[in-house]
Amino acid sequence: MAFPEPLERLIRALERFPGVGARSAERMALHILRSPREEVADLAISLRDARLETVRCSRCRNVSLQELCPICADPERDARLVCVVEGPREVEKMESSGAFHGLYHVLLEGFAPREGASPEADALAALHARVSADGVEEVVLATAPDREGEGAALLVAEHLHGLPVRLTRLARGVPVGSRLEYLHGEILAEAFRGRCSLPAKEKP
Amino acid sequence: MAFPEPLERLIRALERFPGVGARSAERMALHILRSPREEVADLAISLRDARLETVRCSRCRNVSLQELCPICADPERDARLVCVVEGPREVEKMESSGAFHGLYHVLLEGFAPREGASPEADALAALHARVSADGVEEVVLATAPDREGEGAALLVAEHLHGLPVRLTRLARGVPVGSRLEYLHGEILAEAFRGRCSLPAKEKP
Repeated sequence: MAFPEPLERLIRALERFPGVGARSAERMALHILRSPREEVADLAISLRDARLETVRCSRCRNVSLQELCPICADPERDARLVCVVEGPREVEKMESSGAFHGLYHVLLEGFAPREGASPEADALAALHARVSADGVEEVVLATAPDREGEGAALLVAEHLHGLPVRLTRLARGVPVGSRLEYLHGEILAEAFRGRCSLPAKEKP
Repeated sequence: MAFPEPLERLIRALERFPGVGARSAERMALHILRSPREEVADLAISLRDARLETVRCSRCRNVSLQELCPICADPERDARLVCVVEGPREVEKMESSGAFHGLYHVLLEGFAPREGASPEADALAALHARVSADGVEEVVLATAPDREGEGAALLVAEHLHGLPVRLTRLARGVPVGSRLEYLHGEILAEAFRGRCSLPAKEKP
């Protein structure tokens, strides 16, 4: 005996989510059966709304409700500075840090760097066009400091080769607030390589 | 900056699934944004169908499309034998073993023994009524051999106290096909306690 057909169909549909295997999909589906109808209807509507109402910003390619996202549309932001990130989550994170006041460029078409997606050709072409035309002075590569992120950063650098723009990347080192004893050796090695002089002390 | 409202709403809705935290919900939601529209529509429809088209079998309380589930409606099944299980997954598992030809009683209203749900009073009352009226001769307790399952089995036994029915439970011991070196000590201890005599060898 298998589950009734509508339940089986739901399980198959849920299995398409990244990281959701057969057993998780089954648990999720059984959860649906015992959820209030309004809650299930709400989820179904949310799914469609999120898919149908959001678009990619025509400038930075971040997920957006308007053709131009609020960040790109904000005249207060410094358009000479473009921060290249992997996906919308990284934009959110950067914004919450409050440290960056330029614009973004969301690199990965598929939004899924950790699931094997790589920067799509048109995301790179769009960045090239932006940098060529929009008076961009500096591109900060803020992809993840791991193999995929490094690879993506390399691709971007290659694509922008020859354009009169300053290419930078986030500093590497010991993360503020951490304790050295818990850090991976490679983090410390990178921080050693990048060590910098303290400013000379002023005499009292 | 947060995500656009429809995306945030979807994330909140997905977080209601058991075992889905904030980060997983975010990943799932971003997956939805890059899925084909037809796939998202299909998921939304599957959710509603599964919730609206399935009911609980009026006899065994398993998930079903009809008022009486196919197992309960099958005249070939032995109605004198009732196997008490925690949820629909256990029914499916038992059926795939091919070892049981009686009927079931699905104990947990909430389908969620591992998430703190306990057998609901009306599931127990329904079992009591079945056993009293339907000529049931044996009730096999097939709840999980862990604390929650034991607790549920105890509750069932208490509820059926005084009825002229044989109460049994699944055998405990070393699982067939396993290697002893990998088994937990408690499994071996239980198998020792339950050891049984070999049948006397016939002389050649």
